[in-house]
This record gives sequence, structure tokens and C-alpha cells, in this order.
Amino acid sequence: MSADIRIVDQAEMDLSAALTVVGFPGIGLVGSIAANFLISTLKLERIASIISPDFPPMAVLKDGRVSSPARIHAAPMVCGADGKCNQLAVVMSDFPPRTEVLYDLSEALLSWCLEKEVVEVMVLEGLIRPEAATDTQVHGAANNQQALDRLGQMGVKSMGEGILSGLSGLLSYLGEAKGLKVTCLLAETTKEYPDARSAAKLLEVLDPLVPQIKIDPKPLYRQAEVIEGQLKNSLKKHEESIADIAERSKIMYG
Amino acid sequence: MSADIRIVDQAEMDLSAALTVVGFPGIGLVGSIAANFLISTLKLERIASIISPDFPPMAVLKDGRVSSPARIHAAPMVCGADGKCNQLAVVMSDFPPRTEVLYDLSEALLSWCLEKEVVEVMVLEGLIRPEAATDTQVHGAANNQQALDRLGQMGVKSMGEGILSGLSGLLSYLGEAKGLKVTCLLAETTKEYPDARSAAKLLEVLDPLVPQIKIDPKPLYRQAEVIEGQLKNSLKKHEESIADIAERSKIMYG
Amino acid sequence: MSADIRIVDQAEMDLSAALTVVGFPGIGLVGSIAANFLISTLKLERIASIISPDFPPMAVLKDGRVSSPARIHAAPMVCGADGKCNQLAVVMSDFPPRTEVLYDLSEALLSWCLEKEVVEVMVLEGLIRPEAATDTQVHGAANNQQALDRLGQMGVKSMGEGILSGLSGLLSYLGEAKGLKVTCLLAETTKEYPDARSAAKLLEVLDPLVPQIKIDPKPLYRQAEVIEGQLKNSLKKHEESIADIAERSKIMYG
Amino acid sequence: MSADIRIVDQAEMDLSAALTVVGFPGIGLVGSIAANFLISTLKLERIASIISPDFPPMAVLKDGRVSSPARIHAAPMVCGADGKCNQLAVVMSDFPPRTEVLYDLSEALLSWCLEKEVVEVMVLEGLIRPEAATDTQVHGAANNQQALDRLGQMGVKSMGEGILSGLSGLLSYLGEAKGLKVTCLLAETTKEYPDARSAAKLLEVLDPLVPQIKIDPKPLYRQAEVIEGQLKNSLKKHEESIADIAERSKIMYG
Amino acid sequence: MSADIRIVDQAEMDLSAALTVVGFPGIGLVGSIAANFLISTLKLERIASIISPDFPPMAVLKDGRVSSPARIHAAPMVCGADGKCNQLAVVMSDFPPRTEVLYDLSEALLSWCLEKEVVEVMVLEGLIRPEAATDTQVHGAANNQQALDRLGQMGVKSMGEGILSGLSGLLSYLGEAKGLKVTCLLAETTKEYPDARSAAKLLEVLDPLVPQIKIDPKPLYRQAEVIEGQLKNSLKKHEESIADIAERSKIMYG
Repeated sequence: MSADIRIVDQAEMDLSAALTVVGFPGIGLVGSIAANFLISTLKLERIASIISPDFPPMAVLKDGRVSSPARIHAAPMVCGADGKCNQLAVVMSDFPPRTEVLYDLSEALLSWCLEKEVVEVMVLEGLIRPEAATDTQVHGAANNQQALDRLGQMGVKSMGEGILSGLSGLLSYLGEAKGLKVTCLLAETTKEYPDARSAAKLLEVLDPLVPQIKIDPKPLYRQAEVIEGQLKNSLKKHEESIADIAERSKIMYG
Repeated sequence: MSADIRIVDQAEMDLSAALTVVGFPGIGLVGSIAANFLISTLKLERIASIISPDFPPMAVLKDGRVSSPARIHAAPMVCGADGKCNQLAVVMSDFPPRTEVLYDLSEALLSWCLEKEVVEVMVLEGLIRPEAATDTQVHGAANNQQALDRLGQMGVKSMGEGILSGLSGLLSYLGEAKGLKVTCLLAETTKEYPDARSAAKLLEVLDPLVPQIKIDPKPLYRQAEVIEGQLKNSLKKHEESIADIAERSKIMYG
Repeated sequence: MSADIRIVDQAEMDLSAALTVVGFPGIGLVGSIAANFLISTLKLERIASIISPDFPPMAVLKDGRVSSPARIHAAPMVCGADGKCNQLAVVMSDFPPRTEVLYDLSEALLSWCLEKEVVEVMVLEGLIRPEAATDTQVHGAANNQQALDRLGQMGVKSMGEGILSGLSGLLSYLGEAKGLKVTCLLAETTKEYPDARSAAKLLEVLDPLVPQIKIDPKPLYRQAEVIEGQLKNSLKKHEESIADIAERSKIMYG
Repeated sequence: MSADIRIVDQAEMDLSAALTVVGFPGIGLVGSIAANFLISTLKLERIASIISPDFPPMAVLKDGRVSSPARIHAAPMVCGADGKCNQLAVVMSDFPPRTEVLYDLSEALLSWCLEKEVVEVMVLEGLIRPEAATDTQVHGAANNQQALDRLGQMGVKSMGEGILSGLSGLLSYLGEAKGLKVTCLLAETTKEYPDARSAAKLLEVLDPLVPQIKIDPKPLYRQAEVIEGQLKNSLKKHEESIADIAERSKIMYG
Repeated sequence: MSADIRIVDQAEMDLSAALTVVGFPGIGLVGSIAANFLISTLKLERIASIISPDFPPMAVLKDGRVSSPARIHAAPMVCGADGKCNQLAVVMSDFPPRTEVLYDLSEALLSWCLEKEVVEVMVLEGLIRPEAATDTQVHGAANNQQALDRLGQMGVKSMGEGILSGLSGLLSYLGEAKGLKVTCLLAETTKEYPDARSAAKLLEVLDPLVPQIKIDPKPLYRQAEVIEGQLKNSLKKHEESIADIAERSKIMYG
């Protein structure tokens, strides 16, 4: 159950005062949409590939150029609380990692952050909206009292009691054990659709931390549709292709 | 089948004369209710996280603050038989560990106890009540004749013959092999409900060992309901969330 | 498929001239009944625990005192062919080991025997009785011509051709590779019942090797019933308890 | 999930300026047909065996002579863009590798290429043709801007966005992390048939890079049929044989 | 998927000029019958045990004497092409190894051969007879041109194209990688029956290589029946016994 995860640097960039945002495909694709928006709007450069035999056997194409399906993008920029950070890094993947991989992926990301001397990690995720709710709330949690207090000042509702499942849960408690500050922002959403509205809410909360963001809802909604379309389309092809390989090879082994 | 369990200290505390109580979610949630009661009533401080890739991928929230789903809480306090202990430590988890993990979890806990020079381990659990029984008996077992004799003096009925399943069984026989005194207290209960009455019986037995406990049944019953509600509610959300991750990722691997 | 088996000494005893008898729960519980009879009649002392994460997660209770579910008992005593042995050791378990564990369990037992300089190993087991048979025969096999000849002198029928399955097979051929003399005695029995009569036949054959045995059939039959009752009863409780743990924990992992 | 792949050299050949073409059995058998055509037309010599316990338990026969089911063939020859390469190597297998093996197979191939100082890797594969399409397009992708530009000059349509599944995806993004130039050529085809026409399209694209190729469609079509027949026939026998071994052995293990 | 195979010598014998014949239970039991015939007719001595936790948990009995279920027998004797070998060794097993074990078993056998400086390996197997065929052909394959030429001189039909499945395939291509000459002789047979006639054909082909063989068909047919009877009978008992162990133990683990 131990996954082998490597993070391979592809560009040199000082990250010793970086705010690192993590957005993976989860409920409502909220984390993915927000992470993709940050990368394209702020023109972040791909600086590292996350590589593992436990990821699906595939590469991702952009203008015919290949990259690993999980990556880190970054750029120098004043950001973070009180502008204390000098770089913004965004960690993302084009596939939802298997639950068996989440622990080792979290450990690998946190070790990379420590090695680069990243200042703070912020995880963006969706959270299933209570049925009665009519508007989209953003909830917060942190592994550190100071970060928790700041969430309150930012007007984010504390999650209170409960359970944080998946990457946000693992990154925050494993980060605590490593002495790394991790904050989680979870926007209410629904399971079925890519939810650009919910991602926009997350980006609004991030706004004071990343002053360069200009949240123009229209491109965001368009981007949500594009991401949804790409994911559905390419994953369908990947699924067909992988099913074909599996079928061809299965009769050869006793 | 070998689980990787780490215990990470989060606060320095001398435990060289500690009584360590272990209460995990089991039959009737008896061990959990009793452990939670001790932690909140005696205001024990979280001193260590138990961390493993073999635990469920989740963190637990208290007032928005994140912690690992298995933990050790402690405080300096006169306790134990004849007041010979100077600290009380309570080991607990917010999830029932898988059977495959129990052996390595037991080994890790016992090694931590030896390293900290803990004096004695006391495991609290439930035991299925015989159908004919009308009142709640507490049974005892130990890996050491002296501890067994003391149980008798405390009015605890010896379990006699039989089998101790799960953590209580493993901690006691692996503790014997490591030279660590382990006593088990098992209160009769039923499978279906969180049984605060049964947990109260365990705490009554513990009373002479931990003089500071004031067992007020009302908050205990209320706490039992709260624990039950939290466990059911958050585990349901966790289950939904994990099922969603699993479903999203399963098509990506051949 | 590699099991991790440790044998932890709990009492110092010279075994450099020991006859080691192995009786595990198998067909008709014959090996278990005979081993338990030897331990209780000859008042053998528990000298070692056999410990493994691949054993069921449980401890065994005797008068409220906990022990590991697989153990070695021994005492100094003149025994063996021509009284050449000075100690008798009996290896037993309270559970039938999984087939995947048998190889490594055999290797661990034989290594322990070599380290203690044990003279000879004798495995007691049941063998399914041919349907036509009316009386209970004891068959023998060995990994050594001298041991085989002695079996003949003891009036034991050689098994001739065939296969020895499970512990008796593994201990004898792995013992040959390690240069350790292993003899197997297999009493005919049926699958369904604990067969005290069959165990008594094995003990009769052992009689010249262990002069102190007084085989009084009555306590043996009573003991067979007790062993059967204990096994059934405690295994049922263990099964319920383990099923409960498994059910509670299964929803937590993706 | 870690596969053990070894590449064993069987002939010494300088490959320090080699173009390495990879053609494995995939959709439409396109990669296999093209690779086999290159090997037989250009009379490439077998120079290395790819060996793994994770490959099917079989050898391949040619004129009664045995070889491993995955191999590398090569010969000195002027090839590559602008004739900058001095050797052509072709990597192929007679079986479709399992998806679990693809990552480690890719890593092993790339490490071998680096060790031999191979200049460039070119992966040939099929791609499911859109239903509306009437002619066979060849699409390209690369892990390097220079290689991507060259594809354009060769008249190959860039794949644009999307996912590259299987060997082509893994070789290209893992190659990027190792600093090795990898280009992928994917010819449109259908799942059901060995598609010689599609393979011929790939070879046409390769033509300027391997001037010695004379693509005579007739032997190619014939060869496609032969390859299909051999694969079907021998895989059927292999399947029968392996099923027989599996059936015979399954009852022997508990 | 890595099996742990050890070959333990039990008698010292110079094998530095040995012809090693391999006959395992496969289609028609042809390899087994031929190997057993060579061992009994030529009175070969057991010189080594092949031992593995991945073999079925059983020993084999001959006149009450235990041995491992896979073994090597040998004797000094002039044999091989042109009488160039001075010893004959026969490798056999009493059970069909699982397909997962075949690779590591092949590696272990070939390493043993290299260490003993064995000259040549010859694998005997069955091959499913084409439906139209009326007589029993023996086909040959080799990993070496010289050995292949010699097969022709011996009148053995080359297998031409195709696939060699199982031990013969693995031993020959892994042998090539280790520089060891491996020849395979495959006699046509049917799946259902132990085929003494087919085994006799193999032995006829071997005749010039092992001059001491006197193929008297009658004992061979009788032996085929005996082998079949023993295999069926003892495997049935083993199966019952192993199923019993598995059933008894399965309820004990969560």
C-alpha cells in the first residue's frame, strides 16, 4: 500500500517564501477549476512534474506538447497574508488520485514543500452542500491556531467539528506532524457538476491573498465547461484505450 | 500485511511513571466513550499523533483545528494502584482500525510505552453480554499475576478461560513478550448501541486508580449521544466522499 | 506470501537433549488433544510464545492470565528412544494456522529447534480413515532411515507411498534440508469430531518414548470434550468480535 | 506494483547516435506491423532481450530458434532528421504488456536509451479514428518543442489537447523527466483489425527519417495478415496451455 | 510476484560435465512419465531438494521416507551428444508449479546449472496434437544454432514458428540470456490422459544421448498408470486435507 511518488523539478525557481495552493479533481471539480484558473490567469510556469507508477498510465497534451498528469506551476509574485509571500505555486493533477495513493502523495508534497522552504500550504476543495442550503458557503480549517484565526478575519466560517476526507485531511494533519502550516478552504457544491460558481467563491476568498487575481466570472464559467469537456472526453478515450490494453493482455498470464 | 505506524510526539511530557489507558471504538463504543470522558473531564492535553498510511485517509476537526484520527492525550496527575503513577495518558482513535492493522498498531503502542517508560497499560473494551444477563458486569484479564491479583482486590471478576479478540488480546500478549504489564477491563454490552451505562461501569472500576474522576452519569450519557452522533454523521460524510473519490479514479487504471 | 514468525523465550530451560512433540489443531483435533494431554498430565511449563502478525488477532486466557495463541511448553524429564532425551517440549496452538503461514511457521520452529539443539522432532496429526476400516491405525513416516527403522520396531505401520500435507509434510522435508530428524505419527480419524480415541492411540504409541505418561482414557475423553467445547465457544465469540471490527472499519477506506 | 524489467544485451553495437523506434501491439496492431516491417525489410539484428517475471511465461520461436517475447533489433544506418543518426534500433514485443507493467517497462527502456546514448525515441501507435473520418490521418506529439516543430515541417498534424494513454504517454513524459527527446506518431485506425493501411501511413511519415525504407504495400498487407495469424494462433495455444497449467496447479494450494 | 526458490544439495556429486533433463507435470504428464522412467530405470540418486514457500504445503513419501515435492536426481554416466557428458541429472516435481512461480523456478534452476557447470539442459514436455494427426511426432526447439542443427541430425522436426509456453519457454530464453544451451523436446499428446506412448516417443529420441536407456514399453505403460494413480489419489487426499485446513482457519481472521 506504499506508493512511489517522485517530484522532478523542471525549472529552477526560488520558492523559499512561497504560498502553495493545492487543487485536485474532487467533488464538483471545484479545486481543479480554481487551480486551472490561477495557472492560466496568472500565467504560471510549469516547474515540476509529479511522477508515480501508481498514477494512471497516461500523459497530458497541451498544443501537442506532452506533460506528466500531475504538475506544479509557479511564478514570482507578491501574495499571501499581508503580502508576506514572494511566489505563488499551484499543485494540480488531471486525474483523481486513488485513495491508496493519497497518503504517500501527501507525504511527497509536504516533503517537497519543506525542501523548498515553502511558507504555507492552502488546499482548495469542494464540500457537499447541505440539502436545505440556498447559497454557497466557504468553510475553513487549519492545522495551526494562527492560521485558524486569520481565516476568521478573512470572514471564512470555521468547519467546527467533523471529518476532513482525502487530500485536505491528510495534508493538514501530516503537515502538522512536519511543522508545516496547512489551511483548507472548502466551498459547498454538489457532486454531479463541475461547479464554476463554487470555484469562483473560493477564488473570492483567495483574493486578498493573491492580489493579481481578477475574477471575471464569464471566462471562469467558460473554463469550467472546457475543463469538464476535456476531462470527460479524454478520460473516455483513455478508458477505452486502457480497457483495450487490459483485454488484449489478460489472456496471456495464467 | 505489515502496517506502517508512526507515533509523532507533539508536546514534551515526562511519562516515566504513567498509567496509559487505551480506548478504541469497539463493541458498544464502550472504550471510546470512556476514553473521551477521561480526556474531556480531566482536560488531558494532546501530546502525540498516531500516523499511518493504513489508517483511513481523513483528519478530525475540533473547533476547526485539525488533528490526526488517532491520538494520545495526557496530563500529570497522581493515579494508578496506590497512587504510584504520576501521569495519566489516554490512547484513542476516531475510527475502528482494520483487523490487519491491529498487530502493528499494538507493537507501535507498546514500543512507544517502553520508550517513554510507561508503568502500566490498561485496555478498556466492551464484551458481548450473555443473553440471560440483566446487569452489567465488568470482567478482567491481565498478562501478569500481580496485576491479576489486584483486579481481584478491585472486585473485578476474572474472565477465566476464553479468548481476548482484537486490541486487548494483542496488547496483552505482545506486552508480555516485551515485559510490559497490561490489564484489560471489559464491560458487558450489546453490539447495536453506544452504551454509556456500560462505559460508566468501566469508569467506576477505574475510579480508585484515577481519583480525579467524578462520574456524573448525565454528562456521560449526553456525551455518549454526542459521540454516537458525530461518529455516524462524519463517518457517513467520509464514506460518501471516499466513495466519490474511488468512483472517479477507478476508470483511469487498466 | 512470507509470514513473519517470532519465537520469544519466556523461561530459561536447557533443551539440548530435548524430544520436541508438535500437535496443532487438524483433522479430528487429534494433534491438539494429544498435545494438551501431555502438557496438563506432565505439568509442562510454558517456556516460549510463538508470535506473528499473520496469526489471528487474539490472545488465549487461562484463569484470567493471558498468553499468545501459539506456545511451547516443556519440562526436564527422561524420554525419547532408549531414554536418550532429557527434556520434553510440546509445541501447540489454539487456532489452526492458515496454509499460507505453514511454511514460515515450519522454518521458524525448525530454526528454534536447531538453536536449542533439540535432538528430535515428532509431529502428531490425524489422517482420514479409509471408509472400510473398523479400527484405528497409527501410521508413521520420517525424514531419516534410522528414525524410520525405529518406527517399525515400535510397531508403527509405515505410510509407504503418498503425500504428507500441511505441517507434518513441511516440518519433515524442511527438517531434512536442515539436518534435523523429524518423525510423523498419524492416527486414523474422521473429519467431523474431536477424536479422543484416536488421540489415545497416538499416546499409546508415544508411551515407550515418554514413560511418565499414564493414559487414563476417561480424563482424555473428558478433556477432548472440554477442548472441543472451548474451541467452538471461544472461536464463535472471536468470530463475532472480528466480524464486528471488520464491519465497523470497512466503510472507512476507499 | 513494481515490475522487474531487465534488458540483456546479446550483441555489441554502438548506438550512441541511434534513432530508436518503439512499436508494441496496440490498437489495430499498427505499432507491431510497422516495427516488424522495419525489422524484416531493413534486416535488423537482434541485439537485446527484454526480460521480466511480469511478462507472460513464454518464448517466441523463429525457425525453431527461441527468443524472449520482447526484444530490441538494430543495424548501423544513416537515418533520423537530416541524417543525423547513424543507427536504427527497433523495440518490439510479441505480446501486449499489462498496464501494471507499462511504467516500469518505460523506465527500463529509457534508462537503456540513456546508457546507450540514444539520440531520440520515436513511438509508433494506433489511435481510434473518429467515426466520421474517411481517410487515415497521422497525428503527432512530443515532449520537446524542437521535436514538435519538426513534426509540423514533416506535415504531421499536432494532436493539440488530450491524453496519450499507455506506452506513448509514459515514454514521453518520463523521457522529459530524464532529458530524452521522445516523439509519438499515432495513425488513426479501428480497434478490431490489424490495420496494414494505417501502418503504411506511419511508415510513409517515417520515410524521410529512414531513407532505406521502400514501402511496398503488398508485402506489408501480407505481413499484416501473417502477424495477425501468428498472434491469434500462437496466443490461442499459449492461452490453452497456460489455462491447463493453472487448472492443474490450483487445487494444490490451500 | 517474486517467488523464493532454494535448491539444497543433499549429496555431493561432480556435475561439471552433466546433461540435465527437466520433466515436470504438464500436458499428458509426458515430461513426468519420462523423467520418472529415467530416474527408476537408471537408478539415479536424489542429490538435491528444490524448496519454496510458493510450492504446495506437502511432502512426498517413498517407502515411508519423506522428500521435498521437487527434486534433482543424478548419477555418473556417459551420455549426451557424442558421449561428451559424464553425468545425467533429472529435475522433476510431484506437482504442477503455479504459473506465477515458473519464472523464478527457471531462474533458480539455471543458476544452479551454471554453478554446477552443467553442459546442457534438455526440457521434456507434451504439446497438444493437431486434431487431424494420427501418429505422435516429436518437435524440437533450442536457444542455440548448434543445438538446433543437432536436433535435425537426430531426426527431430523443428517447431518452426510459434510460442513455447511455460517452463520450456522460460528455461530456453532465460538460458540464452545466461549463456546456457537449452534444447526442448515436445511430444504430441492429448490433454486428458497420462500418455505413456508419447513419453516413450520422447525417450526414443533421447536414446542416442543416453545409451543406457532400454525402453521396454510394458513397464513404461505400467509406470504411467502408477504415476497417474498416485498423482490422482494423493492429490485428492492433499486437496481434502488442505481444504480442511483452509476451512478451519478462515473464520479466525477478520
